[in-house]
Amino acid sequence: MQSKNQKVIAVDIGGTSVKFAIVTQAGEVEIMGTEKTANFKNAEDIGPYLKNKLQELKISISEFAGIGIGAPNGNKLNGSIEFAPNLPWKGLIPLASYFSNYFNLKTILDNDANAAALGEKHYGKAGDKNDFIFITLGTGLGSGIVINGNMVYGHDGLAGEIGHLILIPEGRMCGCGRKGCVETYCSATGLVKTYVEKKKLTQNLNIDSEYVFQKAVEGEKEAIESFNFTGNLLGLTLANCVAFSSPKTIFLFGGLTRSGDFLMKPTLKSFNENVLKVYQNKTEILLSTLPKNNAAFLGAASLIWNDTINS
Amino acid sequence: MQSKNQKVIAVDIGGTSVKFAIVTQAGEVEIMGTEKTANFKNAEDIGPYLKNKLQELKISISEFAGIGIGAPNGNKLNGSIEFAPNLPWKGLIPLASYFSNYFNLKTILDNDANAAALGEKHYGKAGDKNDFIFITLGTGLGSGIVINGNMVYGHDGLAGEIGHLILIPEGRMCGCGRKGCVETYCSATGLVKTYVEKKKLTQNLNIDSEYVFQKAVEGEKEAIESFNFTGNLLGLTLANCVAFSSPKTIFLFGGLTRSGDFLMKPTLKSFNENVLKVYQNKTEILLSTLPKNNAAFLGAASLIWNDTINS
Repeated sequence: MQSKNQKVIAVDIGGTSVKFAIVTQAGEVEIMGTEKTANFKNAEDIGPYLKNKLQELKISISEFAGIGIGAPNGNKLNGSIEFAPNLPWKGLIPLASYFSNYFNLKTILDNDANAAALGEKHYGKAGDKNDFIFITLGTGLGSGIVINGNMVYGHDGLAGEIGHLILIPEGRMCGCGRKGCVETYCSATGLVKTYVEKKKLTQNLNIDSEYVFQKAVEGEKEAIESFNFTGNLLGLTLANCVAFSSPKTIFLFGGLTRSGDFLMKPTLKSFNENVLKVYQNKTEILLSTLPKNNAAFLGAASLIWNDTINS
Repeated sequence: MQSKNQKVIAVDIGGTSVKFAIVTQAGEVEIMGTEKTANFKNAEDIGPYLKNKLQELKISISEFAGIGIGAPNGNKLNGSIEFAPNLPWKGLIPLASYFSNYFNLKTILDNDANAAALGEKHYGKAGDKNDFIFITLGTGLGSGIVINGNMVYGHDGLAGEIGHLILIPEGRMCGCGRKGCVETYCSATGLVKTYVEKKKLTQNLNIDSEYVFQKAVEGEKEAIESFNFTGNLLGLTLANCVAFSSPKTIFLFGGLTRSGDFLMKPTLKSFNENVLKVYQNKTEILLSTLPKNNAAFLGAASLIWNDTINS
């Protein structure tokens, strides 16, 4: 039997589904359930749903050290989801305080990329690192930045938007309403946009990053060039990150990293060419070691472990 | 009479001269002397020079809480000046440990922009701020970044090179050997380059940023456009800095800021246009309140005060 301090409830809130798991300090993940996000009329309805789920499974909430919640646009400083464009609930939702009152249990909410960065610290290869950056390359580009051993939240809790550094002034239109953001180039969506441009297609309805990867494997010139273009800009962006906070390691995570050398070779080449001389051969670029399917749970759980260490 | 804890020796090492002052905790600066940098064959020769100076002035080293040294390419983590292109001494110079042994007194060395940032914290308007960035706009662009109340040094002590973020891929040649760095546009040198381009001049031997400012005051179109161009790119850079660490305040310091609205108006306009929506109307851009002539001394002194607080 495990003591109270050895497991937490991890909640992974996404645009499509909300997922629940029990995570032990050793990293065992027991999935409790998944529900469509749209089925929660209000974010607060997740509380009663989780309560029912625990009752069904005959699990007492008192067994847990806390509840960790990873969510898009999560803000740890005030425990809220803030104006998340891809979630059905609008405005500022103080979900952490709602959960901690409802369950009478410590609840910490953070954005998913920050949670994943802490996951790498507690369950992956960042355990001994005080200065690292964790980047998720999925539909967009998310990031968690750790400096002096602490996650960077900034004065408002919303720091670490590397995906929205403006990389190409007056470049591609971004979902944020501005132009030329990193994530319009360096993400699964960005790769597809580049490929569609290179193929001079008028629409891209059936193309995803997996398709571009398959074409690259088949040796198609435009697909390989698309990866080179993406990696070149990603490497440049990582070099800029190093000029800012000089991390020991940058971890890459997410669907796009499964493209292997098609992405990594041009990324590393560009990084080495673009990094300022004083930083050369110091910063390592590594693939995250978090398991793809459980990374979000391990990240959400780490919010509690990290708080236990730091408090 | 002041106690030992109330004053320090501040040393400001620059490409042209090495300057010495006594600085009190209240911010009084008493200049002890200035010597041409080239007159010190080795950096270590600064030690005996300072000792003689103190003897001349009949001041005992035991009166001081420490020695703070600001230097280009200074690295606080190892107390060294590292491969400074604009200093006569080559390689890696562990000056802090040399000084602390020679004088038997705590000595802290850091790069001049970090020291100035701490100066703003101890003597300026950043005293209550845990998250701020300090930017010096001089010949180049230097920066000190404070996050969670601590200066950002990175894993190697060399973080905070905002001047060497690549702003325009394949842009202007930079002294660092790469292209398109922020400081090739956003600095006194960058302003002059822009002006020379706009005027289609073949050489710029007699033009400095003060000249461009005077021309702008006279209403010359190209001079005003040069400030607009510079401010536009500076505002964009500041917006990128906010996406990284979400500071409460960005302080601007240095010769170029004395151009007043010619620089600040386009900078603020561009910043407001380019900052990501979630950060809008949160971060303030302020001019540093450090006195121009004593800023380097106040910064160097703050290295000791900051260490006293944090240790």
